[in-house]
Amino acid sequence: MTATAPDDHRELPGRIMAREMAEQPAVLRRILAEGAPTIRQVAERIAARAPRFVLLTARGTSDNAALYAKYLLEIRLGLPCGLTSMSTVTAYGARPDLTDVLAVTVSQSGGSPDLVASTRAAREAGAITLAVTNNPDSPLAGVSEYHIDIMAGPEKALPATKTYTASLLALYLFTEGLRGGDGAPAQMLPGLAEQLLARHDEVRALAARYRFAERMVITSRGYGYPTAKEAALKLMETSYIPALSYSGADLLHGPLAMVDNVSPVIAVVTDGRGGEALQPVLDRLRGRGADLMVVGPGRYVEKASAGFVLPTEGVPEEIQTVLEIIPLQLLAYEVTIARGQDPDAPRALAKVTETH
Amino acid sequence: MTATAPDDHRELPGRIMAREMAEQPAVLRRILAEGAPTIRQVAERIAARAPRFVLLTARGTSDNAALYAKYLLEIRLGLPCGLTSMSTVTAYGARPDLTDVLAVTVSQSGGSPDLVASTRAAREAGAITLAVTNNPDSPLAGVSEYHIDIMAGPEKALPATKTYTASLLALYLFTEGLRGGDGAPAQMLPGLAEQLLARHDEVRALAARYRFAERMVITSRGYGYPTAKEAALKLMETSYIPALSYSGADLLHGPLAMVDNVSPVIAVVTDGRGGEALQPVLDRLRGRGADLMVVGPGRYVEKASAGFVLPTEGVPEEIQTVLEIIPLQLLAYEVTIARGQDPDAPRALAKVTETH
Repeated sequence: MTATAPDDHRELPGRIMAREMAEQPAVLRRILAEGAPTIRQVAERIAARAPRFVLLTARGTSDNAALYAKYLLEIRLGLPCGLTSMSTVTAYGARPDLTDVLAVTVSQSGGSPDLVASTRAAREAGAITLAVTNNPDSPLAGVSEYHIDIMAGPEKALPATKTYTASLLALYLFTEGLRGGDGAPAQMLPGLAEQLLARHDEVRALAARYRFAERMVITSRGYGYPTAKEAALKLMETSYIPALSYSGADLLHGPLAMVDNVSPVIAVVTDGRGGEALQPVLDRLRGRGADLMVVGPGRYVEKASAGFVLPTEGVPEEIQTVLEIIPLQLLAYEVTIARGQDPDAPRALAKVTETH
Repeated sequence: MTATAPDDHRELPGRIMAREMAEQPAVLRRILAEGAPTIRQVAERIAARAPRFVLLTARGTSDNAALYAKYLLEIRLGLPCGLTSMSTVTAYGARPDLTDVLAVTVSQSGGSPDLVASTRAAREAGAITLAVTNNPDSPLAGVSEYHIDIMAGPEKALPATKTYTASLLALYLFTEGLRGGDGAPAQMLPGLAEQLLARHDEVRALAARYRFAERMVITSRGYGYPTAKEAALKLMETSYIPALSYSGADLLHGPLAMVDNVSPVIAVVTDGRGGEALQPVLDRLRGRGADLMVVGPGRYVEKASAGFVLPTEGVPEEIQTVLEIIPLQLLAYEVTIARGQDPDAPRALAKVTETH
């Protein structure tokens, strides 16, 4: 597949991305109805082998889903985790001893040669290998001992949207399964996702403020941090605005110098400990006169320059991640349209990236 | 300490940062002469306890030094590693089982309360704890079982320079010690660092091309990737140019859409497998007509729009990281001066960042 979208995709800018964003409630429902039993089975088998350490491998959007899994595994299971630096295996031939290690590889296509190579190497090194993909027939699924299908259906837009939320939900159900839980709170996600998508006009109005932005900073802490990273990636790959994402704590260690009234900031605020830990950063940003948009609970949005209120009442913090990206996907889409570009045709992206 | 530098620092813009960059060869010599025996002793004691996993914790510049250690540990020792998501411990109270885990915390000041808290928690959870700091009397050194002093002397400029290269060398000697090596190749570093610093005028000429840059992309792979991240951080915290760093492979997964002839790219090319793995990315960037500056071996610089030739002949790839940041520190400094700003007085930085 090449970087240029076929002609029929260009009739209405962003038509494909819009359709796939809109499919998200249906995909989440499908995973809950049809995928959950298998995911739980995989989780039970892996739990029986009592892994002591988890290594997560992914790139791009899937890397942000892997980061979400890292938070779940560390916080809810007490399992220390690492994100793989893939080149140590593929370029340098590192062969660590992976006994007792669960190696999880997340990839929508399951086709990147370097992911297949590093997963094969992990399996040879003694790891329990699990692939989380949108394609059960992919080489990655084939090379892994276990496989979870995220059941998102074909994704044709170059910016990944429905495969991201599908990966998040699958990883949530998997990690809950590891601890013997049933992930029941996830049942509320499809309905809430539908409510968020219905507020597209609200996001269109917010997008206007970024039409001429030359850069953006996106920050969060805890379970919202993968959202900040994914929102920055979405904005960059559709609108080409340089969007820098930082955990709130890292932002204070340097890049804050870059934030002022011409660098707009988006804060992703979870309703829970992540949001509380972000509070000093929000205060500091306010003190600097930053243009601050909050995606989060109403009480945080009220104090910001602008915002999008998330429905968080009764939603456990650890599943808010699945919802809060949705208005930010819409934002990337609308900012791109407002700038006269086509979200379906980013200049340089190939759908399956062939890194080795 | 507040964000504003004292008055006497402002007479000559960048005076303090310039002095501290210039101290680097002396600091490297001091570590090799006075620090190495203790570092080796610490490494031997830790090796005797046979850790199976390593968790690295740091923020900002120290986080980039920790990433270098991750490459060394994975490639040269076959030890699986993870970088800590600190909020899982400090905000969410995660208490993973850290038996057989070596927890390394890198911090120049050793004073950040969240680093002290997470290190204490790691020790209570059964980890072997090691602090790598520039202050043996710091709370972080106190709370850790083992300590390595990076001996860089007081660092007064807000952008960290000499503590970065000092941390890299200390971590190299430590990881070599873990595998029973003596780190002899490091003896060539002080002299080579001196040669690089003597080429300041060359960097000043290169800086002119970024005077009006609105954004920059910095890429690398393998041992050069920590350099790309640290160079981006240095550029942002001194000049406020949004500088995005990506591993070459990640760059192809989305952000490449942002690169064109108005987004200059800097590639850090190690002489070795990292540089080889970056080759397809360099070809792709060239194909897009990107303005590409290479910091690396002459044969790569020749094919780029501009560059800085690193002395890599006979220098093992794994220690090139200590050298290749130096021209990029100088570049951040010179770009900032060229833009009429003061590298010693970034707008928002405090030297000890009090994140909790």
